[in-house]
Amino acid sequence: MPEVVPLRIERGRGVRIIDQTRLPHALVELELRTLDAVCEAIRSLRVRGAPLLGVAAACAMAIAGETVGADDESLAHAATAVRATRPTAVDLHRAAEAARAAAAAAGPSPEARRAALWDFAERLLRAQRERDAAMARHGAALLPVGARVLTHCNTGALATGGIGTALGVVREAHRQGKLAHCYATETRPLLQGARLTMWELMQEGIPATLLADGAAGGLLASGRVHAVLVGADRIARNGDTANKVGTLALAAAAARFGVPFYVVAPSTSFDLRCPSGAAIPIEERSAEEVASFAGVRTAPEGARVFNPAFDVTPSDLIAGWVTEAGVLRPPFEAVEALLRDAGEYAGIH
Amino acid sequence: MPEVVPLRIERGRGVRIIDQTRLPHALVELELRTLDAVCEAIRSLRVRGAPLLGVAAACAMAIAGETVGADDESLAHAATAVRATRPTAVDLHRAAEAARAAAAAAGPSPEARRAALWDFAERLLRAQRERDAAMARHGAALLPVGARVLTHCNTGALATGGIGTALGVVREAHRQGKLAHCYATETRPLLQGARLTMWELMQEGIPATLLADGAAGGLLASGRVHAVLVGADRIARNGDTANKVGTLALAAAAARFGVPFYVVAPSTSFDLRCPSGAAIPIEERSAEEVASFAGVRTAPEGARVFNPAFDVTPSDLIAGWVTEAGVLRPPFEAVEALLRDAGEYAGIH
Repeated sequence: MPEVVPLRIERGRGVRIIDQTRLPHALVELELRTLDAVCEAIRSLRVRGAPLLGVAAACAMAIAGETVGADDESLAHAATAVRATRPTAVDLHRAAEAARAAAAAAGPSPEARRAALWDFAERLLRAQRERDAAMARHGAALLPVGARVLTHCNTGALATGGIGTALGVVREAHRQGKLAHCYATETRPLLQGARLTMWELMQEGIPATLLADGAAGGLLASGRVHAVLVGADRIARNGDTANKVGTLALAAAAARFGVPFYVVAPSTSFDLRCPSGAAIPIEERSAEEVASFAGVRTAPEGARVFNPAFDVTPSDLIAGWVTEAGVLRPPFEAVEALLRDAGEYAGIH
Repeated sequence: MPEVVPLRIERGRGVRIIDQTRLPHALVELELRTLDAVCEAIRSLRVRGAPLLGVAAACAMAIAGETVGADDESLAHAATAVRATRPTAVDLHRAAEAARAAAAAAGPSPEARRAALWDFAERLLRAQRERDAAMARHGAALLPVGARVLTHCNTGALATGGIGTALGVVREAHRQGKLAHCYATETRPLLQGARLTMWELMQEGIPATLLADGAAGGLLASGRVHAVLVGADRIARNGDTANKVGTLALAAAAARFGVPFYVVAPSTSFDLRCPSGAAIPIEERSAEEVASFAGVRTAPEGARVFNPAFDVTPSDLIAGWVTEAGVLRPPFEAVEALLRDAGEYAGIH
């Protein structure tokens, strides 16, 4: 069992989350009992990480079923509200739609629909944990004994509810005794690497070093790193991969210095209807995130800011996509089969 | 004349600097009257930028001549103290040595030696301004009309005492009406881009946008940028270039997306005795710079940190080196001639 539990489903009532904006200084749990509260928590990154956003979206739908209504129209409105919170992570969009489908399949009874919505959320979280464990095994098999790896943003338990995607691979490699060191970029502007990844790694005693995003190029050039492992928010059919801003620069530097660059993501983060990265919507967030920090203004007043939350790494810079079905390459036939056949997302592509 | 004057020589007394750690919120000048005070200001980045560090080093030597002694032994000790402040920027090391040589050439009289030390500092600052202006013309000629450029760290008036190196090119292109936009990376950990470059650009009404270091990859991929312009702290004979940490990742992304990447640096930033980047010493700074932000702790207590102040961009990622003698390529014969023949550095290679 993971020691960090970022989200607990409270069936029939709501969802309890760790407020990730308060870490690492305070471990604060929030009880969310309304659709609006969940949407606010998603927008504010209190709950985050593409796979966990899928579960949070499912919880939001179940809560809407309790508090707004479990009929088709209420759930359609709820799904729209959930999807509007953050545009890039496909898990969130897919889970909102799959929750609607699960309710519809339960027939007309409100009680049956509400039960189906909670069932779906619980099934999704459970399946996510299983996918994490499978990805970790497939990913760890790619690493040499004594591996030193670099990761970006947070892809751990806090991002999935399981053991994590890229950080799950790090955990598994550590458990197998083959991990020498994990380097973590701080991940500006919101410092998920410094605040969350370092916290998770240090909690488990995994040897870890923090660096500024800009320092990763020199580290990769030094030959000290055997692999770069990142997560994904949405993967297009051709392999172009949207992930936390800064991923693309890491991939370009890794390619220049011959360091293999792996994306670790479950089937649910693939969007096979999306032909390439050009079709992935990229969220732009507020100027304040870059121009200030912890309430301290850094840039001059009035400075114009470009603050995309994600970037798209071209497929040719990626050595492989580590999924629960193994290490894949475009066009990801195995993912297509998983998405078509797997229980909780059946029929939702 | 530049509007920003980061350093004024007060002949016979000391040097007056803008404390760059206080910008953009406060414009505070410091009067430095001792060798220790200048060394502290250099170490703490109150005065910074490779070319301006050369002038600051010359001032430190002149102040040592007044306050410690102008004899060979005193000046040798002073030069050692100056060189120990920061290892990477070659201007600082070269200026300390050239000041000693200037004093020695003035003969045994302490008065003559002190005068020679101040003369050297003044000549160096004047020459730096002329070099900046020449670089700006050569660099602006490389840009198309309507140019959108990306720069890193601060390479403006605050870094040179003239109009700047890379930012001098931006200023000149703006003056010529051919600059559409300048993008500035914030430059973690010390945010010279957010605090200093944005301040300089906004002071002059140059259209500018700030972005996190990690966002530059996506910007370069978007095709919106025509050129990347950066400065240098030390350039090896083969063209490998040490500059502010994060430069290498920008160069790798620029190469991947076909955006020309230029280094703008005066002859004084070349170290032709250095065969390649492997021989350039890279300063590592305190963990606190990365683990905290504006006095607010971000990483967990006890987090291990890797905080190199610079990285080395391989020569093959650089389209050209813009110097006061034009746009050059390795092995930089024109620079060799300049360093051999130019007044203030004669005999100091």
